[in-house]
Amino acid sequence: MMQGMVHVYTGNGKGKTTAAFGLSLRAAGAGKKVFFAQFVKGRTYAEIRAVEKYLPMITVKQYGLDCFIYNDPTEKDIQAAQKGLEEVTDKLSSGQYDVVVLDEASIALYYRLFSLDNLWNAISGRAEKTEVIVTGRYAPQELIDKADLVTEMKEIKHYYSKGIEAREGIEY
Amino acid sequence: MMQGMVHVYTGNGKGKTTAAFGLSLRAAGAGKKVFFAQFVKGRTYAEIRAVEKYLPMITVKQYGLDCFIYNDPTEKDIQAAQKGLEEVTDKLSSGQYDVVVLDEASIALYYRLFSLDNLWNAISGRAEKTEVIVTGRYAPQELIDKADLVTEMKEIKHYYSKGIEAREGIEY
Repeated sequence: MMQGMVHVYTGNGKGKTTAAFGLSLRAAGAGKKVFFAQFVKGRTYAEIRAVEKYLPMITVKQYGLDCFIYNDPTEKDIQAAQKGLEEVTDKLSSGQYDVVVLDEASIALYYRLFSLDNLWNAISGRAEKTEVIVTGRYAPQELIDKADLVTEMKEIKHYYSKGIEAREGIEY
Repeated sequence: MMQGMVHVYTGNGKGKTTAAFGLSLRAAGAGKKVFFAQFVKGRTYAEIRAVEKYLPMITVKQYGLDCFIYNDPTEKDIQAAQKGLEEVTDKLSSGQYDVVVLDEASIALYYRLFSLDNLWNAISGRAEKTEVIVTGRYAPQELIDKADLVTEMKEIKHYYSKGIEAREGIEY
Protein backbone atom coordinates (compact mmCIF):
# COMPACT_ATOMS: atom_id res chain seq x y z
CA MET A 1 0.00 0.00 0.00
CA MET A 2 1.17 3.51 -0.71
CA GLN A 3 2.05 5.60 2.31
CA GLY A 4 -0.47 8.36 3.05
CA MET A 5 0.74 11.83 2.13
CA VAL A 6 1.09 14.88 4.38
CA HIS A 7 -0.64 18.03 3.10
CA VAL A 8 -0.10 21.52 4.54
CA TYR A 9 -2.56 24.35 3.81
CA THR A 10 -1.22 27.65 5.12
CA GLY A 11 -1.18 31.38 4.33
CA ASN A 12 -3.34 34.34 5.29
CA GLY A 13 -6.18 33.77 2.81
CA LYS A 14 -9.68 32.32 3.24
CA GLY A 15 -9.97 28.64 2.33
CA LYS A 16 -7.68 26.52 4.53
CA THR A 17 -10.13 24.94 6.97
CA THR A 18 -12.75 25.09 4.22
CA ALA A 19 -10.53 23.01 1.92
CA ALA A 20 -9.93 20.50 4.73
CA PHE A 21 -13.70 20.09 5.13
CA GLY A 22 -14.07 19.76 1.35
CA LEU A 23 -11.41 17.07 1.28
CA SER A 24 -13.19 15.27 4.13
CA LEU A 25 -16.43 15.38 2.13
CA ARG A 26 -14.65 13.97 -0.93
CA ALA A 27 -13.10 11.20 1.19
CA ALA A 28 -16.53 10.40 2.64
CA GLY A 29 -17.86 10.07 -0.90
CA ALA A 30 -15.17 7.47 -1.59
CA GLY A 31 -16.20 5.46 1.50
CA LYS A 32 -13.25 6.62 3.61
CA LYS A 33 -13.23 7.38 7.34
CA VAL A 34 -12.06 10.78 8.56
CA PHE A 35 -10.96 12.12 11.96
CA PHE A 36 -11.10 15.93 11.97
CA ALA A 37 -9.24 17.43 14.95
CA GLN A 38 -9.55 21.15 15.56
CA PHE A 39 -6.94 22.81 17.70
CA VAL A 40 -7.46 26.27 19.22
CA LYS A 41 -11.11 26.36 18.08
CA GLY A 42 -13.82 25.51 20.59
CA ARG A 43 -17.10 26.57 19.06
CA THR A 44 -19.62 24.52 17.10
CA TYR A 45 -19.40 25.99 13.63
CA ALA A 46 -21.97 25.34 10.88
CA GLU A 47 -19.65 22.89 9.12
CA ILE A 48 -19.49 20.78 12.28
CA ARG A 49 -23.27 20.75 12.56
CA ALA A 50 -23.46 19.57 8.92
CA VAL A 51 -20.93 16.80 9.54
CA GLU A 52 -22.60 15.62 12.74
CA LYS A 53 -26.02 15.61 11.15
CA TYR A 54 -25.26 14.13 7.72
CA LEU A 55 -21.81 12.54 7.57
CA PRO A 56 -21.31 9.87 10.23
CA MET A 57 -18.02 8.70 8.70
CA ILE A 58 -16.42 12.01 9.68
CA THR A 59 -15.67 12.48 13.39
CA VAL A 60 -14.93 16.06 14.50
CA LYS A 61 -13.32 16.79 17.86
CA GLN A 62 -12.19 20.14 19.22
CA TYR A 63 -9.21 20.71 21.49
CA GLY A 64 -9.40 24.43 22.10
CA LEU A 65 -11.09 27.01 24.25
CA ASP A 66 -11.45 29.54 21.43
CA CYS A 67 -10.61 32.53 23.57
CA PHE A 68 -6.91 33.40 23.43
CA ILE A 69 -6.74 34.48 19.81
CA TYR A 70 -6.47 38.13 20.81
CA ASN A 71 -4.52 37.46 24.03
CA ASP A 72 -1.69 35.20 25.07
CA PRO A 73 -2.57 31.53 25.53
CA THR A 74 -3.04 30.41 29.13
CA GLU A 75 -1.98 27.21 30.85
CA LYS A 76 -5.47 25.84 30.09
CA ASP A 77 -5.08 26.49 26.37
CA ILE A 78 -1.77 24.64 26.41
CA GLN A 79 -3.25 21.72 28.33
CA ALA A 80 -6.19 21.44 25.92
CA ALA A 81 -3.88 21.40 22.90
CA GLN A 82 -1.46 18.90 24.41
CA LYS A 83 -4.27 16.56 25.45
CA GLY A 84 -5.56 16.91 21.89
CA LEU A 85 -2.20 16.05 20.40
CA GLU A 86 -2.02 12.94 22.58
CA GLU A 87 -5.44 11.78 21.42
CA VAL A 88 -4.64 12.57 17.82
CA THR A 89 -1.37 10.63 18.06
CA ASP A 90 -3.46 7.57 18.93
CA LYS A 91 -5.94 8.22 16.13
CA LEU A 92 -3.11 8.59 13.63
CA SER A 93 -1.45 5.31 14.58
CA SER A 94 -4.70 3.35 15.03
CA GLY A 95 -5.22 2.50 11.37
CA GLN A 96 -8.93 3.32 11.83
CA TYR A 97 -8.88 6.45 9.69
CA ASP A 98 -8.04 7.03 6.04
CA VAL A 99 -7.71 10.77 6.58
CA VAL A 100 -6.78 12.68 9.75
CA VAL A 101 -7.11 16.48 9.68
CA LEU A 102 -5.11 18.58 12.15
CA ASP A 103 -6.98 21.84 11.71
CA GLU A 104 -5.13 24.94 13.01
CA ALA A 105 -2.16 22.84 14.12
CA SER A 106 0.13 25.46 12.57
CA ILE A 107 -1.50 28.11 14.75
CA ALA A 108 -0.97 25.85 17.79
CA LEU A 109 2.72 25.65 16.82
CA TYR A 110 2.92 29.41 16.35
CA TYR A 111 1.58 29.98 19.87
CA ARG A 112 3.84 27.21 21.23
CA LEU A 113 0.91 25.15 22.52
CA PHE A 114 3.04 22.15 21.51
CA SER A 115 6.33 21.69 19.69
CA LEU A 116 6.98 20.75 16.08
CA ASP A 117 8.90 17.71 17.36
CA ASN A 118 5.80 16.46 19.15
CA LEU A 119 3.57 17.18 16.16
CA TRP A 120 5.94 15.48 13.75
CA ASN A 121 6.27 12.44 16.02
CA ALA A 122 2.49 12.08 15.88
CA ILE A 123 2.40 12.46 12.09
CA SER A 124 5.29 10.13 11.38
CA GLY A 125 3.80 7.47 13.66
CA ARG A 126 0.66 7.31 11.52
CA ALA A 127 -0.68 4.07 10.06
CA GLU A 128 0.63 3.52 6.58
CA LYS A 129 -2.59 4.29 4.74
CA THR A 130 -3.45 7.45 6.72
CA GLU A 131 -3.39 10.74 4.83
CA VAL A 132 -2.72 13.81 7.01
CA ILE A 133 -3.96 17.36 6.45
CA VAL A 134 -2.42 20.20 8.51
CA THR A 135 -4.00 23.66 8.33
CA GLY A 136 -3.35 27.07 9.82
CA ARG A 137 -1.43 30.26 9.15
CA TYR A 138 2.26 30.52 9.85
CA ALA A 139 3.26 26.93 9.03
CA PRO A 140 6.95 26.81 10.01
CA GLN A 141 9.52 26.23 7.26
CA GLU A 142 10.59 22.93 8.85
CA LEU A 143 7.02 21.59 8.51
CA ILE A 144 6.85 22.81 4.90
CA ASP A 145 10.14 21.02 4.19
CA LYS A 146 8.83 17.74 5.63
CA ALA A 147 5.36 17.81 3.99
CA ASP A 148 4.55 16.16 0.65
CA LEU A 149 2.15 18.85 -0.56
CA VAL A 150 1.99 22.49 0.46
CA THR A 151 -0.49 25.11 -0.76
CA GLU A 152 -0.28 28.70 0.37
CA MET A 153 -3.72 30.31 0.49
CA LYS A 154 -2.73 33.89 -0.20
CA GLU A 155 -5.13 36.73 0.45
CA ILE A 156 -5.34 38.94 -2.62
CA LYS A 157 -8.36 40.82 -1.29
CA HIS A 158 -10.98 40.28 1.39
CA TYR A 159 -14.32 41.92 2.11
CA TYR A 160 -13.40 42.22 5.80
CA SER A 161 -11.48 45.29 4.69
CA LYS A 162 -14.83 46.81 3.62
CA GLY A 163 -16.16 46.30 7.14
CA ILE A 164 -18.19 43.19 6.35
CA GLU A 165 -18.17 40.84 9.31
CA ALA A 166 -17.92 37.03 9.38
CA ARG A 167 -21.27 35.43 8.53
CA GLU A 168 -22.70 32.10 9.63
CA GLY A 169 -22.68 29.53 6.84
CA ILE A 170 -19.98 31.40 4.93
CA GLU A 171 -17.12 32.01 7.36
CA TYR A 172 -18.12 29.69 10.23
CA MET B 1 -30.52 42.39 3.50
CA MET B 2 -26.83 42.47 2.73
CA GLN B 3 -25.85 41.74 -0.85
CA GLY B 4 -24.16 38.37 -1.32
CA MET B 5 -20.43 38.59 -1.93
CA VAL B 6 -18.42 37.29 -4.88
CA HIS B 7 -15.47 35.04 -3.98
CA VAL B 8 -12.73 34.01 -6.40
CA TYR B 9 -10.42 31.07 -5.62
CA THR B 10 -7.64 30.84 -8.17
CA GLY B 11 -3.96 29.89 -8.50
CA ASN B 12 -2.07 26.71 -9.37
CA GLY B 13 -2.29 24.99 -5.95
CA LYS B 14 -4.53 22.19 -4.66
CA GLY B 15 -7.58 23.37 -2.74
CA LYS B 16 -9.81 25.53 -4.95
CA THR B 17 -12.67 23.16 -5.78
CA THR B 18 -12.09 21.51 -2.42
CA ALA B 19 -12.64 24.82 -0.63
CA ALA B 20 -15.82 25.41 -2.66
CA PHE B 21 -17.14 22.02 -1.51
CA GLY B 22 -16.13 22.83 2.09
CA LEU B 23 -17.97 26.12 1.88
CA SER B 24 -21.02 24.31 0.51
CA LEU B 25 -20.87 21.91 3.46
CA ARG B 26 -20.65 24.82 5.89
CA ALA B 27 -23.60 26.54 4.20
CA ALA B 28 -25.59 23.30 4.41
CA GLY B 29 -24.88 23.18 8.15
CA ALA B 30 -26.38 26.65 8.46
CA GLY B 31 -29.55 25.52 6.65
CA LYS B 32 -28.65 27.22 3.37
CA LYS B 33 -29.34 25.97 -0.16
CA VAL B 34 -26.47 25.59 -2.61
CA PHE B 35 -26.29 25.21 -6.40
CA PHE B 36 -22.87 23.84 -7.40
CA ALA B 37 -22.20 24.19 -11.14
CA GLN B 38 -19.12 22.53 -12.59
CA PHE B 39 -17.86 23.77 -15.91
CA VAL B 40 -15.38 21.75 -18.02
CA LYS B 41 -15.66 18.75 -15.67
CA GLY B 42 -17.93 15.88 -16.67
CA ARG B 43 -17.11 12.97 -14.38
CA THR B 44 -18.80 11.90 -11.16
CA TYR B 45 -16.16 12.59 -8.55
CA ALA B 46 -16.30 11.23 -4.99
CA GLU B 47 -17.37 14.61 -3.60
CA ILE B 48 -20.39 14.57 -5.92
CA ARG B 49 -21.33 11.08 -4.75
CA ALA B 50 -21.11 12.30 -1.14
CA VAL B 51 -23.28 15.32 -1.85
CA GLU B 52 -25.90 13.31 -3.77
CA LYS B 53 -26.04 10.67 -1.06
CA TYR B 54 -25.96 12.79 2.08
CA LEU B 55 -26.59 16.47 1.37
CA PRO B 56 -29.89 17.05 -0.42
CA MET B 57 -29.67 20.83 0.04
CA ILE B 58 -26.69 20.92 -2.32
CA THR B 59 -27.48 20.43 -6.03
CA VAL B 60 -24.51 19.62 -8.27
CA LYS B 61 -24.72 19.91 -12.03
CA GLN B 62 -21.96 19.47 -14.59
CA TYR B 63 -21.63 21.36 -17.86
CA GLY B 64 -18.53 19.81 -19.34
CA LEU B 65 -17.33 16.84 -21.34
CA ASP B 66 -14.08 16.48 -19.39
CA CYS B 67 -11.99 15.67 -22.41
CA PHE B 68 -10.37 18.75 -23.89
CA ILE B 69 -8.02 19.57 -21.03
CA TYR B 70 -5.01 18.36 -23.01
CA ASN B 71 -6.38 19.45 -26.40
CA ASP B 72 -8.21 22.43 -27.77
CA PRO B 73 -11.88 22.72 -26.85
CA THR B 74 -14.31 21.65 -29.55
CA GLU B 75 -17.62 23.17 -30.59
CA LYS B 76 -19.32 20.67 -28.26
CA ASP B 77 -17.29 21.85 -25.26
CA ILE B 78 -18.27 25.43 -26.05
CA GLN B 79 -21.94 24.51 -26.41
CA ALA B 80 -21.94 22.60 -23.09
CA ALA B 81 -20.37 25.55 -21.25
CA GLN B 82 -22.69 28.12 -22.83
CA LYS B 83 -25.77 26.05 -22.07
CA GLY B 84 -24.42 25.78 -18.51
CA LEU B 85 -23.94 29.50 -18.20
CA GLU B 86 -27.52 30.07 -19.38
CA GLU B 87 -28.88 27.67 -16.76
CA VAL B 88 -26.67 29.15 -14.06
CA THR B 89 -27.83 32.66 -14.97
CA ASP B 90 -31.36 31.52 -14.11
CA LYS B 91 -30.27 29.84 -10.88
CA LEU B 92 -28.41 32.97 -9.82
CA SER B 93 -31.37 35.28 -10.39
CA SER B 94 -34.02 32.87 -9.05
CA GLY B 95 -33.53 33.67 -5.36
CA GLN B 96 -33.76 29.94 -4.63
CA TYR B 97 -30.12 29.55 -3.62
CA ASP B 98 -28.08 31.13 -0.84
CA VAL B 99 -24.82 30.05 -2.46
CA VAL B 100 -24.05 29.40 -6.13
CA VAL B 101 -20.67 27.89 -7.00
CA LEU B 102 -19.25 28.33 -10.51
CA ASP B 103 -16.53 25.71 -10.32
CA GLU B 104 -13.82 26.01 -12.99
CA ALA B 105 -15.49 29.07 -14.50
CA SER B 106 -12.06 30.72 -14.69
CA ILE B 107 -10.82 27.78 -16.75
CA ALA B 108 -13.85 28.15 -19.00
CA LEU B 109 -12.90 31.82 -19.47
CA TYR B 110 -9.29 30.91 -20.14
CA TYR B 111 -10.33 28.55 -22.93
CA ARG B 112 -12.87 31.10 -24.23
CA LEU B 113 -15.84 28.77 -23.73
CA PHE B 114 -17.72 31.94 -22.82
CA SER B 115 -16.77 35.57 -22.28
CA LEU B 116 -16.14 37.48 -19.07
CA ASP B 117 -18.96 39.84 -20.07
CA ASN B 118 -21.42 36.94 -20.18
CA LEU B 119 -20.13 35.52 -16.89
CA TRP B 120 -20.29 38.90 -15.18
CA ASN B 121 -23.80 39.54 -16.48
CA ALA B 122 -24.88 36.29 -14.84
CA ILE B 123 -23.17 37.13 -11.56
CA SER B 124 -24.39 40.71 -11.36
CA GLY B 125 -27.96 39.58 -12.11
CA ARG B 126 -27.99 37.40 -8.99
CA ALA B 127 -30.67 37.63 -6.32
CA GLU B 128 -29.60 39.96 -3.55
CA LYS B 129 -28.90 37.29 -0.94
CA THR B 130 -26.98 34.96 -3.26
CA GLU B 131 -23.27 34.45 -2.50
CA VAL B 132 -21.16 33.46 -5.52
CA ILE B 133 -18.01 31.35 -5.53
CA VAL B 134 -15.88 31.24 -8.71
CA THR B 135 -13.01 28.74 -8.89
CA GLY B 136 -10.33 27.79 -11.39
CA ARG B 137 -6.80 28.69 -12.41
CA TYR B 138 -6.02 31.77 -14.45
CA ALA B 139 -8.76 34.05 -13.11
CA PRO B 140 -8.43 37.15 -15.30
CA GLN B 141 -7.42 40.42 -13.66
CA GLU B 142 -10.74 42.02 -14.54
CA LEU B 143 -12.61 39.33 -12.57
CA ILE B 144 -10.21 39.78 -9.64
CA ASP B 145 -10.87 43.52 -9.73
CA LYS B 146 -14.64 43.00 -9.64
CA ALA B 147 -14.71 40.30 -6.91
CA ASP B 148 -15.16 41.04 -3.20
CA LEU B 149 -12.79 38.31 -1.97
CA VAL B 150 -9.90 36.69 -3.80
CA THR B 151 -7.61 33.95 -2.52
CA GLU B 152 -4.74 32.67 -4.60
CA MET B 153 -4.05 28.99 -3.88
CA LYS B 154 -0.34 28.91 -4.61
CA GLU B 155 1.47 25.64 -5.08
CA ILE B 156 4.55 25.57 -2.89
CA LYS B 157 5.12 21.86 -3.47
CA HIS B 158 3.08 18.92 -4.74
CA TYR B 159 3.58 15.17 -4.60
CA TYR B 160 2.68 14.89 -8.29
CA SER B 161 6.29 15.94 -8.88
CA LYS B 162 7.35 12.72 -7.09
CA GLY B 163 5.30 10.71 -9.60
CA ILE B 164 2.35 10.10 -7.29
CA GLU B 165 -0.88 10.08 -9.27
CA ALA B 166 -4.28 11.53 -8.38
CA ARG B 167 -6.14 9.25 -5.95
CA GLU B 168 -9.88 8.73 -5.49
CA GLY B 169 -11.15 10.34 -2.30
CA ILE B 170 -8.18 12.70 -2.13
CA GLU B 171 -7.91 14.43 -5.51
CA TYR B 172 -11.26 13.50 -7.05
